[in-house]
Formats: sequence, C-alpha cells, structure tokens
Amino acid sequence: MRQFVVIGRDVPTDPDAISLSDIPGAGRLDLLCRCVSAGVFLSHGIRESVRVHLAIADEFTVSFDSDALRHLHPDERNVAARVRDALDARDEAIGHMPADVSPGVELRRMGLDATLDRLVGADGRGPDGTLVQLHEDGAPLIDAEPPEDPVFVLSDHHDFAPDEAAAVDERADRRLRVGPELLHADHAITVVHNWLDTDGYASY
Amino acid sequence: MRQFVVIGRDVPTDPDAISLSDIPGAGRLDLLCRCVSAGVFLSHGIRESVRVHLAIADEFTVSFDSDALRHLHPDERNVAARVRDALDARDEAIGHMPADVSPGVELRRMGLDATLDRLVGADGRGPDGTLVQLHEDGAPLIDAEPPEDPVFVLSDHHDFAPDEAAAVDERADRRLRVGPELLHADHAITVVHNWLDTDGYASY
Repeated sequence: MRQFVVIGRDVPTDPDAISLSDIPGAGRLDLLCRCVSAGVFLSHGIRESVRVHLAIADEFTVSFDSDALRHLHPDERNVAARVRDALDARDEAIGHMPADVSPGVELRRMGLDATLDRLVGADGRGPDGTLVQLHEDGAPLIDAEPPEDPVFVLSDHHDFAPDEAAAVDERADRRLRVGPELLHADHAITVVHNWLDTDGYASY
Repeated sequence: MRQFVVIGRDVPTDPDAISLSDIPGAGRLDLLCRCVSAGVFLSHGIRESVRVHLAIADEFTVSFDSDALRHLHPDERNVAARVRDALDARDEAIGHMPADVSPGVELRRMGLDATLDRLVGADGRGPDGTLVQLHEDGAPLIDAEPPEDPVFVLSDHHDFAPDEAAAVDERADRRLRVGPELLHADHAITVVHNWLDTDGYASY
C-alpha cells in the first residue's frame, strides 16, 4: 500500500463555495485534484493499493482508495466534483466515522493531526505504515531504500505551516529529497511512484 | 533546452468545438494541458528553457515556450483556453510561419512530421537537438546518459499510429524506458524532468 496525504489549507469546506468553472479559485483545489490523479492513475487503468488523502482546511479529510474507485476520470473537474460531493456529505461524518460519498471516496471529520494518527499513529510507524516526509533537507531518493507501506505527506502551494510541520516532524520515520528543484505536490507524487515502481531505480 | 512533443490526435482544430466546461470531451485535451503544466512549471515558478509542442490532429502544432510565457497558470482550464485561443488564430498561420497567439504561445500549420523536421531534421539530430523516444522497449533511464538538448516525443491516450510511429522511428536517436508501468504522458514528462534535473539520478 502506498499512501499520500496532501494538505489543502485554503480549500473551502462549504461545497457551495466550490465552482467547477473556477477550481483554482477554491483554494487551489486544482492542485489537489492533480495529486489525486497522479496518485491513482496509470495510462490505461488505476493503480492497485494506493490511497490519496486530502486534508482540507485542517477540518475534513477526503480519501480516495484506488481499489474501490469507480468511474473516476483524471481531469481536474471530475476529481473536483468528487471532492465537492464529499464535502456535501459532511453532516454525515459524525465523530471519526466516515461518510461514504461514492465508491472509493470517503470523508472524515479529521484534521491533519487526527488523519496522521489514524494512518501512522503517534509514533509514525503504524498501523498503516511509516511516515515519510518529502523535504529539501532529506536524503536523495537514489540513496534510500524504498520503504514498505509508505505514507508520504506533502503540502499544497504553501510551505508546511508550523503546526503542520510539527505534526509531521514528530512522526516522520525519515526524510527524502526528490531532487534539486522544488516540485508541485502532484509532480512529487509522480516521481515517488516511479521510484517505487522501479524498486529504487533498480528494476525497469 | 528540453523539448516535448505530445501528439493529440483527437483534439478538434475548430476552437468552437472546445468547451472549457468539458475539456476531456475535446479529444482528451485535459491530458495535453497537464503535459504543458508538467513541462513548464516548478512549484513556485516556471522552468527555464523548456518548450512543449502539442501536435493537434496532425494539422496544427501549438507551442509553449517557458522562457516567454506570461500569466499562465497550471490548471487545465487555463492552459486549454490558450490552446483554444491558438486555434482561433489558425487563419493567421500561413505556410510554416507561426501565428503569435500570446506571449510564449505560437501556432504553426504543421503536422507531426513537419514539426519533427523543424526541431530535429530528417535525421533526428538537429537543428534543435536529438530525438528521444520514450518506449517500453527502450533502455532504462537509470542506465542512460542524459542527452544534451533532448526532444522527447510522447503520445496522448492512444498508442502511436503507424504513420506517427514511422515518423518518430526514422528519427529516434535512442529509445528510453521510464519504468515498468505505462504512465500517462504528463507523468512521463515529470519523470524525465526529474531524471534530467538530477543529472541521471546522480545530483540532488
């Protein structure tokens, strides 16, 4: 299982504030949509065992599960519509129980900290996997051993805010660096997938 | 200079047939738009010396030059609007002279063969650079020396058609393989950029 948590600090939690004709205007939701696509899609199908979690406004988390998704297309508008539908079901997310939105899409009333607790616990090593931070001070991907069941955390167009950085830092099993250029989150996901697909650039 | 030629066989050449509310419906223009974004954008800026050429319906080529672009945003709708504007200027593209559409965007009345001739000549080695084909039978990226001034050719959601494959085959200086999974063209561009950014996974 590969998982990606993407922070979308500025995305509105009110679905009526999301216009499919101005997806960037919804707190750069376009970038988060491309993260979902980069996470789950291959050229002619959907990857197995990938989950992408969008942590929206530190209040809700919308999760896409590649093994259960149906009829999702990779364009931004299609993904944005799923996110909007998920937020439309926010009253059904009670406590930490998810609202089921559509096949493979769930909404939880959880901010970043609660989502990381759910995925990797307080120590960053379980139950789902180990937290890996993509960071410019990290070790080069080429030198690192691909982790089992990694949970990567990325930020949208903003740097990590102090509270977000703290939540990640205290759980990060390790830090990895994808290259000398600062990439958009969706491009970083693609690079990481390729690194894992090739078993650390060893197997093509 | 890094260049990417992306074939968009099904994109309509009539701008009135392109709806910004249904970009995938315009011959999967969404995929081409993501290729432009993957080609030219870094997290907080635009790459230097990158050109992305969209070969549309084997009749027109819309080129984006990262060094001259102004006010382009990475979302699909923004890029699609530029493509539509370019096609709207198609009557001004006479012979092989380009129509200037907006800063950094040009339209030429050239199919794939003429565009490849312009970029890499009949032998695939000039004037702009050498043609590199991304192909599942190619050599693994990790084993290849990063070329100078590469011109990569990719196809949209279709495989190369026989005439396209012939135009590329006869000019390809070499074939490279990005990994064991078949990736969307935009994701392949991101992988190739990272390979070049790191000087062949050597420099982070």
